[in-house]
Amino acid sequence: MGLIFKSKNTVYKPVKDVDLGPTSDEFYLSPNVKAPRLAGFLIKILAWILESRFFGAILVYILKDENLVHRLISSAEINEPPLYVPCHPWEDHKDQEVKSISSESSPPEKVQQALECFSPSPQIIENNTCPSFRRWTIQDYSRAYISGETTPLMVAKRFLDSVNQSSNPSLQMSFFINQNAEDILRQAAESTHRYEKGEPISVLDGVPIAIKDEIDCMPYPTTGGTEWLHRVRPCIDDACCVKHLRSCGAILVGKTNMHELGAGVSGINPHYGTTRNPYDINKISGGSSSGSATVVSAGLCPVALGVDGGGSIRMPAALCGVVGFKPTFGSVSHSGVLPFNWTVGMVGILAGTVEDAFIVYAAISGDVPPNQPTTLSPKLNFPLLKSNNTISNVKMAKYGKWFNDCSDDIKKCCYQALDQLHEHYGWETVDVTIPEIEVMRLAHYVTIGSECNVAIRSDLEKLGTSEIGCDARVALCIYGSFSSKEYLTAQRFRNRHMQFHKCIFEMADVIVTPTTGITAYPIVEQSLEYGDFDYVNAAAMIRYQIAGNFLGLPAVTVPIGYDKLGMPIGLQFIGRAWSEPTLLRIALAVQGLCISSYRKPMVFYDLLSKE
Amino acid sequence: MGLIFKSKNTVYKPVKDVDLGPTSDEFYLSPNVKAPRLAGFLIKILAWILESRFFGAILVYILKDENLVHRLISSAEINEPPLYVPCHPWEDHKDQEVKSISSESSPPEKVQQALECFSPSPQIIENNTCPSFRRWTIQDYSRAYISGETTPLMVAKRFLDSVNQSSNPSLQMSFFINQNAEDILRQAAESTHRYEKGEPISVLDGVPIAIKDEIDCMPYPTTGGTEWLHRVRPCIDDACCVKHLRSCGAILVGKTNMHELGAGVSGINPHYGTTRNPYDINKISGGSSSGSATVVSAGLCPVALGVDGGGSIRMPAALCGVVGFKPTFGSVSHSGVLPFNWTVGMVGILAGTVEDAFIVYAAISGDVPPNQPTTLSPKLNFPLLKSNNTISNVKMAKYGKWFNDCSDDIKKCCYQALDQLHEHYGWETVDVTIPEIEVMRLAHYVTIGSECNVAIRSDLEKLGTSEIGCDARVALCIYGSFSSKEYLTAQRFRNRHMQFHKCIFEMADVIVTPTTGITAYPIVEQSLEYGDFDYVNAAAMIRYQIAGNFLGLPAVTVPIGYDKLGMPIGLQFIGRAWSEPTLLRIALAVQGLCISSYRKPMVFYDLLSKE
Repeated sequence: MGLIFKSKNTVYKPVKDVDLGPTSDEFYLSPNVKAPRLAGFLIKILAWILESRFFGAILVYILKDENLVHRLISSAEINEPPLYVPCHPWEDHKDQEVKSISSESSPPEKVQQALECFSPSPQIIENNTCPSFRRWTIQDYSRAYISGETTPLMVAKRFLDSVNQSSNPSLQMSFFINQNAEDILRQAAESTHRYEKGEPISVLDGVPIAIKDEIDCMPYPTTGGTEWLHRVRPCIDDACCVKHLRSCGAILVGKTNMHELGAGVSGINPHYGTTRNPYDINKISGGSSSGSATVVSAGLCPVALGVDGGGSIRMPAALCGVVGFKPTFGSVSHSGVLPFNWTVGMVGILAGTVEDAFIVYAAISGDVPPNQPTTLSPKLNFPLLKSNNTISNVKMAKYGKWFNDCSDDIKKCCYQALDQLHEHYGWETVDVTIPEIEVMRLAHYVTIGSECNVAIRSDLEKLGTSEIGCDARVALCIYGSFSSKEYLTAQRFRNRHMQFHKCIFEMADVIVTPTTGITAYPIVEQSLEYGDFDYVNAAAMIRYQIAGNFLGLPAVTVPIGYDKLGMPIGLQFIGRAWSEPTLLRIALAVQGLCISSYRKPMVFYDLLSKE
Repeated sequence: MGLIFKSKNTVYKPVKDVDLGPTSDEFYLSPNVKAPRLAGFLIKILAWILESRFFGAILVYILKDENLVHRLISSAEINEPPLYVPCHPWEDHKDQEVKSISSESSPPEKVQQALECFSPSPQIIENNTCPSFRRWTIQDYSRAYISGETTPLMVAKRFLDSVNQSSNPSLQMSFFINQNAEDILRQAAESTHRYEKGEPISVLDGVPIAIKDEIDCMPYPTTGGTEWLHRVRPCIDDACCVKHLRSCGAILVGKTNMHELGAGVSGINPHYGTTRNPYDINKISGGSSSGSATVVSAGLCPVALGVDGGGSIRMPAALCGVVGFKPTFGSVSHSGVLPFNWTVGMVGILAGTVEDAFIVYAAISGDVPPNQPTTLSPKLNFPLLKSNNTISNVKMAKYGKWFNDCSDDIKKCCYQALDQLHEHYGWETVDVTIPEIEVMRLAHYVTIGSECNVAIRSDLEKLGTSEIGCDARVALCIYGSFSSKEYLTAQRFRNRHMQFHKCIFEMADVIVTPTTGITAYPIVEQSLEYGDFDYVNAAAMIRYQIAGNFLGLPAVTVPIGYDKLGMPIGLQFIGRAWSEPTLLRIALAVQGLCISSYRKPMVFYDLLSKE
């Protein structure tokens, strides 16, 4: 039968396992309504009791319970996501020079076509001649493998050594939750063999890529940063995006650490250790994609996958001095991604360079999500970057009061970047007002909290609290408190803010903000065991993230400098839905201006150099 | 400013009135997070308190309150609907003989094109030669006006006399909530003038059409069956669908009675009187579109508009012996319709004949709803009915246990109809199992209740309870009790049932059911003053309605017979999304078989005969 009464909860079988034929053993449950037929004065009394705060609550509970609402709905265990999508009804912005990549192409073909859009990008080359520091890119790996300077197997061994080093007691970087040396070496050997035959699959062949532990990747369990989720939800296949990377020949090097359930922004995880910032190991890395940001920052991978439901890619990217890119909602299939929410999260990419982020985006995007309307089907567009590529006339919307609501170092650094952009490219800032930003933050919080609670509550009820970190427990208590009225009202605000942003994008091409209100802050030692509860710092971290998630807009953060203590600072650009080509052009230009000032982190591993 | 703190609630201005420029007076509210930074053992204690039932609830309330969740979100007064649509991702069923009407056409053009699809339909003509009783159709009115037998003005006068008669103390039919004789006579005079010039706008010119009081229609207030809603939400323009009817020349003859807030299915309204069934004035008419069903049944209008959020068109149509048609979700613009819910309700049509329902459907559908993805944009397809039109090979899915869960008279009558359909047209019933129907009913109840509560709660808080009927108060207490978890879980069931129904429609063309589980039942006199609370009868009424609303499917009910007491019985067909042409063909064929048995109601007015 499709539904199974089991203890307190009602368990619903997968749709495909339910027999719809005439001899099905599904039982027909005729409504057994438990309510008296009342009329006249009695109904007046009933209304009066129901409206009283205390007895009303009890009577409503009894009515809902007697009529099976609790049993069949509230305590349901089902697999299906809600039949609901936020809709982003805007027209495409006409980008002049765009190459459309067919979503029918295979991932290696997509990667190749994306690659052809970039080379050579003049600013990069110019600056690459003598940057003070830069991380190895996908193309660096590919060239080194083709030239025979090194092999995927050599890289994989050096990678495993480096991760071992990073885990020693003096560092305790806690980059990964799970890693299987044997599996990594096997992949590397296969890739090495392909290069030996002169048949690499794509530019990603042999490139080490790490996966946030919120995304299914064989042979690992998917913990979501918890100690229990993988036990109730076994990982049985690669997520769709991981499949695509594997089909391009990438070496999947393990599951990166993350904030428990993605329910926090510090990257402090009491179960798997606190991911430390490569620029200062006494400071947080940011989260929730903490491991993915730090492995890229520390040179272990040129790119890593993350998931961004409330800035979870962009915040750690900014704090760790790497590029973070969250694409438009719906552009990457979420098949095989933990459903911590259904309407705000999106798989995205952490990378050392803008180019690498977009090469991997080409590999993982372009699947039409099942059961979603066609407006959500991704359009895989890439800008054509000619050798004389200059991007001019960019209008950047800036809301001064909001933009300035950050630390002095960040403010100074961001204004400097805006000045440089104006000076070098003639880009203009347009002063605007974006209303009710704090309302949007709260509405987003109600949304992601409600959805997360629904997604995991039935699993949670089977656990003892001892298996859950204290900060996740606190978050879950608040997540579980929202009423349907609060959730639906939040969705009305979503509509309202979509309209505001639509107007803003009539005035400008992108919205520009600092990525975070603060840089990485020190780890409090007591928090290592129980997690921490620090909504004040969290609010400063998340200040500029919400439109990207709540409205599904694409956003990218590019490292632009450092604070007085040497901690990285990011600048964020938020675009229209599906305006990835414009964002890419802008991010490349910003990177071109800033790359010469990039600094090497305190913890850094070089997997390619010969020495 | 966009948001205004006013007493307890926060009032948000319309988007268009918010200044987004640099000199805007919107204030920037930096998050004033009220929470201690906790780590270590303190956070463990916090988690423990939050998890305790009593103190936890209090502390969560305080945290939400201090952090402005209550002020900015829970108590928000905003106009925007949620940025959310249920998605119906199915492909079109390929119907062989379909005429597509451009959505660019004007309403009169659409009506004309729809009209050309029908004539002549052989079964109808054959049976029309000697039916025992039939109501006048749109084409009867049009022909009578063109031939000069009567004029719109004469019809309007006879209409007003009839309504007066129906309101006298011996009948108290309570058809209408508001009616303006002067406005009706003015429209009729204009129409008469057009016919005199030989220039009627369309076949609808001069045809009396009534509008449910949930739909804006000038010069009337839109009460929604309440005593207060029109005071807080003045009607300032025709709803989009009403505009289209007006542009076709129809005479809009007033606002029909309805169940208060649409929150019930009996049609008992303590404020505007209980709409009585024309077949037996001591019985209910069904609801919530009670007035629209009864005016058609009683011959006052060939068609009336209703709104169907949980069978509100189909139930009263079946109980009053008329055709009720709820089109696919998204096919009629809801601009100017009271937003009692956002995802289940749809404007639809009550009519004396299937043809008339579809002619009016052509007039009111075909607007692309604003801010909705293109999959929801309506496709206006009509079947081409040739003179030798026979529809064969129809497969009707029937779930026996569910089909049989109705009164003996209904069961007998429906099986008889299936037998006849098999005999005359060779249609087959396919036995299937539709699982978890009661779960779907509850999930729909959670959905419509939650949405209704959000839509009107901020208005309600300004009222005294004395202005609200007791049964609406009871409903609102339950509607307001749902958590975000219950709402979101209901949306997961929506997805699940969409998948079940997708499988069912791979086995059959339509689902066939009785329209209701019971026929019209007696009005309890005590309920007239306070309303009634009768969830047992309500559940039997609504038994077969849910898929039409919760899954957005089109559905039509056709009168097929009478119970032992002479009360009408309807047979319902539920189709795939956007399969209106197939439904129309089927409904016409059923009507053709049954029309010869139609009986005249006890209360009936003849607006066209010469006698």
